[in-house]
Amino acid sequence: MFMEQRVHFITVATLDLDAARRFYVEGLGWTPTLDVPDEIVFFQLAPGVVLGLFDADAFLADIDAGSALAAAPSGFTLSHNVDSPEEVDRVLGQALDAGARIVKSGRQAAFGGYHGIFADPNEVLWEVAHNPGWRVADDGTVVLGPVEE
Amino acid sequence: MFMEQRVHFITVATLDLDAARRFYVEGLGWTPTLDVPDEIVFFQLAPGVVLGLFDADAFLADIDAGSALAAAPSGFTLSHNVDSPEEVDRVLGQALDAGARIVKSGRQAAFGGYHGIFADPNEVLWEVAHNPGWRVADDGTVVLGPVEE
Repeated sequence: MFMEQRVHFITVATLDLDAARRFYVEGLGWTPTLDVPDEIVFFQLAPGVVLGLFDADAFLADIDAGSALAAAPSGFTLSHNVDSPEEVDRVLGQALDAGARIVKSGRQAAFGGYHGIFADPNEVLWEVAHNPGWRVADDGTVVLGPVEE
Repeated sequence: MFMEQRVHFITVATLDLDAARRFYVEGLGWTPTLDVPDEIVFFQLAPGVVLGLFDADAFLADIDAGSALAAAPSGFTLSHNVDSPEEVDRVLGQALDAGARIVKSGRQAAFGGYHGIFADPNEVLWEVAHNPGWRVADDGTVVLGPVEE
């Protein structure tokens, strides 16, 4: 076995990098790890994990998959967990103020918590969730399931 | 500011969960954090970060975005970094043996290293990369740029 159970980059095709910068840096107050104008901007999102917003044309050229692949983000969400339903609504409000489109307003979620979804200016979907069955241990291990009393 | 610079879940619409299980569990030897048959299987991929392979119909219903959104994964890659070009080729070979489709065979990359890309059985693209300009500090901080001597 060679491939460890590990992700290091999440790279997303981005039609409008300037809009992405305005949203994440100016709107949300995030700090890029590296910003290469007209090409890619990286944000660290977890220990050892970086999101790369990659110019869509460069993304397609780099994948070299021909025209079979579309550059529009689809079929995935990124989730940001918070500590309460109220905080879900506050984050959704901040995202809206920063220029996001609310796809799903805050509400009870099928998984038993509370969540909502926004789209960033390039249609990357972020779920904002309060999940009482989720926690991260001190060593970074994620525990999923019913909350233990 | 309410939204921290943090991702907790990467959730991907998955047409064939059984094929995904065969690939990641049997083929790559990965261990699920939680496996809910016919619904979702979670794999931890970094400290505090989990990949959720979510039944495509359930994914679309959960997003509640109507028919505007396609469930097929598109416009993103997940990257797995390794320590050498040789290791890139070994991981691509392991993925091929496990049932992946090679999208881009191992070769010199535009970023200055060496990489290749495979598609999992549900068309999730994984880049396997050796990037000499990338490293992770002991505290999990990602450093990107020219290798310092």
